[in-house]
Amino acid sequence: MHTPELLLSYIQEDAPFGDITSETTLGDIRCKAVIIAREAGLIAGLEEAATLFSYFGAIIHDRYSDGCEVAADTVIMSMEGPARGILLVERTALNIIGRMSGVANRTRLLSSLLSTTGVPIRIAATRKTAPGMRYLDKKAVMLGGGDPHRMNLSDGILIKDNHLALVTIETAIQRAKHHSLYRKIEVEVSTPADAVAAAKFGADMILLDNMTPDLVRETLDVMNRKDLREHLVIEVSGNIDETNLLSYAIPGVDRISAGTLTHTVRNFDVSLEITHELKKPFQDTQ
Amino acid sequence: MHTPELLLSYIQEDAPFGDITSETTLGDIRCKAVIIAREAGLIAGLEEAATLFSYFGAIIHDRYSDGCEVAADTVIMSMEGPARGILLVERTALNIIGRMSGVANRTRLLSSLLSTTGVPIRIAATRKTAPGMRYLDKKAVMLGGGDPHRMNLSDGILIKDNHLALVTIETAIQRAKHHSLYRKIEVEVSTPADAVAAAKFGADMILLDNMTPDLVRETLDVMNRKDLREHLVIEVSGNIDETNLLSYAIPGVDRISAGTLTHTVRNFDVSLEITHELKKPFQDTQ
Amino acid sequence: MHTPELLLSYIQEDAPFGDITSETTLGDIRCKAVIIAREAGLIAGLEEAATLFSYFGAIIHDRYSDGCEVAADTVIMSMEGPARGILLVERTALNIIGRMSGVANRTRLLSSLLSTTGVPIRIAATRKTAPGMRYLDKKAVMLGGGDPHRMNLSDGILIKDNHLALVTIETAIQRAKHHSLYRKIEVEVSTPADAVAAAKFGADMILLDNMTPDLVRETLDVMNRKDLREHLVIEVSGNIDETNLLSYAIPGVDRISAGTLTHTVRNFDVSLEITHELKKPFQDTQ
Amino acid sequence: MHTPELLLSYIQEDAPFGDITSETTLGDIRCKAVIIAREAGLIAGLEEAATLFSYFGAIIHDRYSDGCEVAADTVIMSMEGPARGILLVERTALNIIGRMSGVANRTRLLSSLLSTTGVPIRIAATRKTAPGMRYLDKKAVMLGGGDPHRMNLSDGILIKDNHLALVTIETAIQRAKHHSLYRKIEVEVSTPADAVAAAKFGADMILLDNMTPDLVRETLDVMNRKDLREHLVIEVSGNIDETNLLSYAIPGVDRISAGTLTHTVRNFDVSLEITHELKKPFQDTQ
Amino acid sequence: MHTPELLLSYIQEDAPFGDITSETTLGDIRCKAVIIAREAGLIAGLEEAATLFSYFGAIIHDRYSDGCEVAADTVIMSMEGPARGILLVERTALNIIGRMSGVANRTRLLSSLLSTTGVPIRIAATRKTAPGMRYLDKKAVMLGGGDPHRMNLSDGILIKDNHLALVTIETAIQRAKHHSLYRKIEVEVSTPADAVAAAKFGADMILLDNMTPDLVRETLDVMNRKDLREHLVIEVSGNIDETNLLSYAIPGVDRISAGTLTHTVRNFDVSLEITHELKKPFQDTQ
Amino acid sequence: MHTPELLLSYIQEDAPFGDITSETTLGDIRCKAVIIAREAGLIAGLEEAATLFSYFGAIIHDRYSDGCEVAADTVIMSMEGPARGILLVERTALNIIGRMSGVANRTRLLSSLLSTTGVPIRIAATRKTAPGMRYLDKKAVMLGGGDPHRMNLSDGILIKDNHLALVTIETAIQRAKHHSLYRKIEVEVSTPADAVAAAKFGADMILLDNMTPDLVRETLDVMNRKDLREHLVIEVSGNIDETNLLSYAIPGVDRISAGTLTHTVRNFDVSLEITHELKKPFQDTQ
Repeated sequence: MHTPELLLSYIQEDAPFGDITSETTLGDIRCKAVIIAREAGLIAGLEEAATLFSYFGAIIHDRYSDGCEVAADTVIMSMEGPARGILLVERTALNIIGRMSGVANRTRLLSSLLSTTGVPIRIAATRKTAPGMRYLDKKAVMLGGGDPHRMNLSDGILIKDNHLALVTIETAIQRAKHHSLYRKIEVEVSTPADAVAAAKFGADMILLDNMTPDLVRETLDVMNRKDLREHLVIEVSGNIDETNLLSYAIPGVDRISAGTLTHTVRNFDVSLEITHELKKPFQDTQ
Repeated sequence: MHTPELLLSYIQEDAPFGDITSETTLGDIRCKAVIIAREAGLIAGLEEAATLFSYFGAIIHDRYSDGCEVAADTVIMSMEGPARGILLVERTALNIIGRMSGVANRTRLLSSLLSTTGVPIRIAATRKTAPGMRYLDKKAVMLGGGDPHRMNLSDGILIKDNHLALVTIETAIQRAKHHSLYRKIEVEVSTPADAVAAAKFGADMILLDNMTPDLVRETLDVMNRKDLREHLVIEVSGNIDETNLLSYAIPGVDRISAGTLTHTVRNFDVSLEITHELKKPFQDTQ
Repeated sequence: MHTPELLLSYIQEDAPFGDITSETTLGDIRCKAVIIAREAGLIAGLEEAATLFSYFGAIIHDRYSDGCEVAADTVIMSMEGPARGILLVERTALNIIGRMSGVANRTRLLSSLLSTTGVPIRIAATRKTAPGMRYLDKKAVMLGGGDPHRMNLSDGILIKDNHLALVTIETAIQRAKHHSLYRKIEVEVSTPADAVAAAKFGADMILLDNMTPDLVRETLDVMNRKDLREHLVIEVSGNIDETNLLSYAIPGVDRISAGTLTHTVRNFDVSLEITHELKKPFQDTQ
Repeated sequence: MHTPELLLSYIQEDAPFGDITSETTLGDIRCKAVIIAREAGLIAGLEEAATLFSYFGAIIHDRYSDGCEVAADTVIMSMEGPARGILLVERTALNIIGRMSGVANRTRLLSSLLSTTGVPIRIAATRKTAPGMRYLDKKAVMLGGGDPHRMNLSDGILIKDNHLALVTIETAIQRAKHHSLYRKIEVEVSTPADAVAAAKFGADMILLDNMTPDLVRETLDVMNRKDLREHLVIEVSGNIDETNLLSYAIPGVDRISAGTLTHTVRNFDVSLEITHELKKPFQDTQ
Repeated sequence: MHTPELLLSYIQEDAPFGDITSETTLGDIRCKAVIIAREAGLIAGLEEAATLFSYFGAIIHDRYSDGCEVAADTVIMSMEGPARGILLVERTALNIIGRMSGVANRTRLLSSLLSTTGVPIRIAATRKTAPGMRYLDKKAVMLGGGDPHRMNLSDGILIKDNHLALVTIETAIQRAKHHSLYRKIEVEVSTPADAVAAAKFGADMILLDNMTPDLVRETLDVMNRKDLREHLVIEVSGNIDETNLLSYAIPGVDRISAGTLTHTVRNFDVSLEITHELKKPFQDTQ
Repeated sequence: MHTPELLLSYIQEDAPFGDITSETTLGDIRCKAVIIAREAGLIAGLEEAATLFSYFGAIIHDRYSDGCEVAADTVIMSMEGPARGILLVERTALNIIGRMSGVANRTRLLSSLLSTTGVPIRIAATRKTAPGMRYLDKKAVMLGGGDPHRMNLSDGILIKDNHLALVTIETAIQRAKHHSLYRKIEVEVSTPADAVAAAKFGADMILLDNMTPDLVRETLDVMNRKDLREHLVIEVSGNIDETNLLSYAIPGVDRISAGTLTHTVRNFDVSLEITHELKKPFQDTQ
């Protein structure tokens, strides 16, 4: 779905028959409103929020850029517009900002941990996103400094354990290579022997899945010894989070992918406040 | 969106142009596959997963009912079907089960805590759900024993602080009452005085927002003294989670709503494994 | 469906491949046009019509507010714009205004009849609307002074005869109460005994269906005697229209719901007239 | 929209988040149900209803064909299936049957009146249908014996007064003729002179709009005298209903189109009753 | 699908998850761009292209009208706007212009050939269009001077060989005539005898399919002799292209329909070039 | 759009209000029908056609696999089912088969030419497809032996001349590399110097655009001399078709991409014939 349509589908989800409270209790009041970050951190989702508020008639006066660091209690967006439009969008916008900022901060946290090691490894996302939020979850990972990995099943070839339960590594890579030269071919393995096989048969990337750090090191050693490392990207994954991330910061690893970035999310705390009603323009007091 | 269409929209999100890996590497192989809970807990989302796998040609042999308690490493669903169909659905199904079970378990945890107090209070959800997941998030809360609260802006009247920044409690309730007799009217307040006002003007429910436990008690006392409690539902909310939940288990409170149920989710750990290829039917060995 | 998309879906229905007459016979002519009420009455649907004309390039110069009373032959909207856009929208807009005004006037008629009795009863809509028109039919009822009742199956609990053919009143109410505290529970009954049962088991509203006025009175008496009326809303329904409405205007009844408001509709007579072509701006006559 | 999708969109309108009453109060009960005509008349919409009930799991045991005449209190469809599916569809199905049968009966009434005259004129529909119901309204007209006329702006050329406010009859017909030979060209006129002009310039059909019966006769005479009638279809319209229909049954007229067929509809009375619960198959009584 | 939605669906097809190259490599650069015809010919599709570029933020400075003749290397549209928006639309716009201009030029070629004969025959399109492109393919045929024929199965009656394999000509025409007077009835035949039958039973148009020119002539002669030609439109079709078109330019034929117009298309050569970056407004050089 | 929905959207395009000819002239007749290849060649699109015919009630008895070679006048699919369903789908199915087979045959032609050279180069598609047909056009290229290249703007990074009009090669590659390691980065160049630069800055693929064969050779030589060829994929493009293809079959080139595969398509000739009516099952002759 195209982005504006995706965002509108969220409003549709939250208001299939309109917002009965605001429609009932507020007339055509116009007002000013602000969005406030309730905690300190990286902010994400403001572009999406602004698109929605604008669609429903608000004028955005000022806003931070996505990816900025903000202090607690910062006004991160201010606007004016019809109260009914602003309140129609409020919760959806806050849910978007809350989740995207949550994902971005978590990504940044893991990125920062990695950067302390000096080993040039980046954190990467997975497809373990909230259904209906893939695009925004991946965007938030990028805003937090992560690599989005493939967006979906259509844009990257990743031969996984379940494929290899049905075809051999060799056959799978051959068929994938035959399909198209325009995509990298990644193979998920869990033993050094399979990593070697995947590299020999021409994989562009190897995903070392569910290995201990020691097994990752051993695998890299074997591959180095066999001279299979050049031009090969190495990804590591498997229940990695802040508690064990640094043990995988092993020279030779290029990416550590972590489902936790998007499947264990604490929303960032953010709220909207209507500050005051606006007088109608050109309305005089005679 | 109707449920089957909602579920298919998630597949569309994960495969806008098909699953290039499986289409490339697997032929028309048929196989058996199982879904395994990797941890113990309440399971949710199997109905949705089964709908998707069936849509893409799999036959579900057996599955647990949603809401069941399962031990770690339990096979919770088994199926057979075309490998490409099963792998097309795999990640979306696991994301649904993972998130819904995560929400259900978290709801059950808070429900259980409350039930230890003997005070008949139930935990309730909010609208702080993942955009695109509202329906499933709310269903998961119900499976975990929670009250779903209103589903969206169209099906419940809740007069909040941002409304009351623009109209008085009295006006808001009057207008809402005039709108329709068929819905309860809930008013969010943060002081005892406003709670009293809302009750006097005819609210059916009062949401005590961001009050300390002591202030909740004081508010209930004032209302009791003024004889305003009969037929009135009392909800409490505001950054409540397992750390402070029990301090709000105050007799007289009917519901404690907690955004944390759906905005701070850790996905339940679940995986799919292809167990073996199936021989084609009617294929003999001569 | 979000309102603008709903309105555009009606244009799609009337012009899946464009408007071949106007595209063929008119060039890029711009013109002025007016919409005229051909009879006297309450007007509704102008907001929706204006949204559509604007979407296709017209500028609305002036229009009445929905809910206004107008005399026959009143110009209720005037506009200018591209003739092809105006004529593309014409019939859809008139169908919307015609039906919504028809519903609003019929609602107002029954409302007025009730108001002559001095008994504070309001007329309410049902779900017997034209498929595809639910939202606009309900809005028209509100503009005519009626209570919209529940909008759809998702936003209100109404336990009807067909449910009670399968579960008892007690079970049904218990289950509904367990589901959520945030909605009123209404039970449809056709005997005084069932009304009493529903009230005792905790229904918030009782719908007395297909009862004679005498039976309604008897039911109310029984309930009064048993002290079950406080906080209980009483709705009456069942083939009620202007011929028998007043016989149901019984003190103690809160709402009379009537399918006739939306299932027996005579469209209000309204037409669009192009008044004259507009010269192109900046076009001189040399 | 393709028919099944159109019908599902009506369910979506009535249950954006499911049917909370049935989901809450009924388990997985299966039942038998019947649809009963509460009055005598032509029945329409059963095919659409059956499609919906089947989609949600019901098995249709028996049903009348659309277009049949039925007596009051006839069972017109019987089915068995999951109670929740049947009740989810109930109101939408009854609204469809009610409106379509209402339109069909009204069409048949006017058809029958015309047939008493011996003049071979048929009643025709207009585009004054309920938005969102065009396809079903037109189908109902056909079931009632009427001519559907053009379905929408894309499939027929009808040059109306508002076109002729901007271009001449001659120009309009010329341009329409140039567009395509594959469509009849109809011109709406209100004077004999314009009827003559339209015929001379090559119209295939003339719509005599808002003329008195005498003026219709005069117009036909003029055209006969000028030898313009051969191969020309004559349609009459303009506020024609049962009160004045016969005065327009003038030899030489081919079609009388009447907005009243679809804009002044009284729904046919029809209801659904669950007759009894079905025991689960293979469930024994030990 | 309404035109803007149809055009946006093409962008959706080309960018389900955005344009990752431009989003990655370009910031918020604004630029000027031109579209250039790389060959001489009739241009079509610029209106559609302009709609898309505008939707994504570009301002169209100047463009040719669709249906114009242009020389090779002509700038046919110039614009300025955000580089990411322009490049998102580029390929879709060029594909639309390329195909529509290709169809228009091919139509014009065959039209011109026919016009050399002096026989007043026009070339007509068929339904052999690219799926998803029907509306634009037909529009291109019109821009090239062709008759669009029926747009789809819903807007014209054409009784073909496959119908006549199941019902007789007489029955088919009778039923079609009964259906509606508002549409022409065309019958496809391949023998003079069937042409005569179709005319006698009241067809408005006869499609002589897959006949040799001699058989077409013979058919016309037979029909003339039987006095069946008046008011009857004659269409000829069946593998007709530029190689045999003129042999079918037989007096008495009204339309020659040719699938080749839309099923054998060579896209017109057109390209987009970004000419230079635009400085941000109000950005000074201090 | 998911494949079945995509295919149904084509039916929607061809029948927004049903198939009025078949609905009018045929009753509920069932029949047998066959699809016949009218010329010899590779067949494609049968899977899609079968999906559509099945959706509308036909039973496919037998069909060729897509990608098979067939002789002229071969029956490539046979089916039985409701005549109205089969004729509703007929033209859409033939348009799909016609275009897909046309694309597949053209791809195979160019593939075969290349294979005569002994140089291991494959032909590749571009994004110059018919709007709305991208997925099927690309699939047809694969069936014809071609490489599909990137499917859309979301699944591959290709830095083109229009990007390089705004940023340098170095910057563009750096930014793209930073974005994600999971995609190959391709750069379009038109000079040897730019090819060298792109390779040095880390491109995975170089697209030599609009170069003469000699310039391609020179570029490859320069790159070889600079030792930049290892692991680098070389694509050549720019107005290449069967007339000049072989001159680009230069050792060192990996892919030749040709817009002609999908923008200059002659549909394969294929037709559907209803062979005979089927007697109703269980209908006896007493």
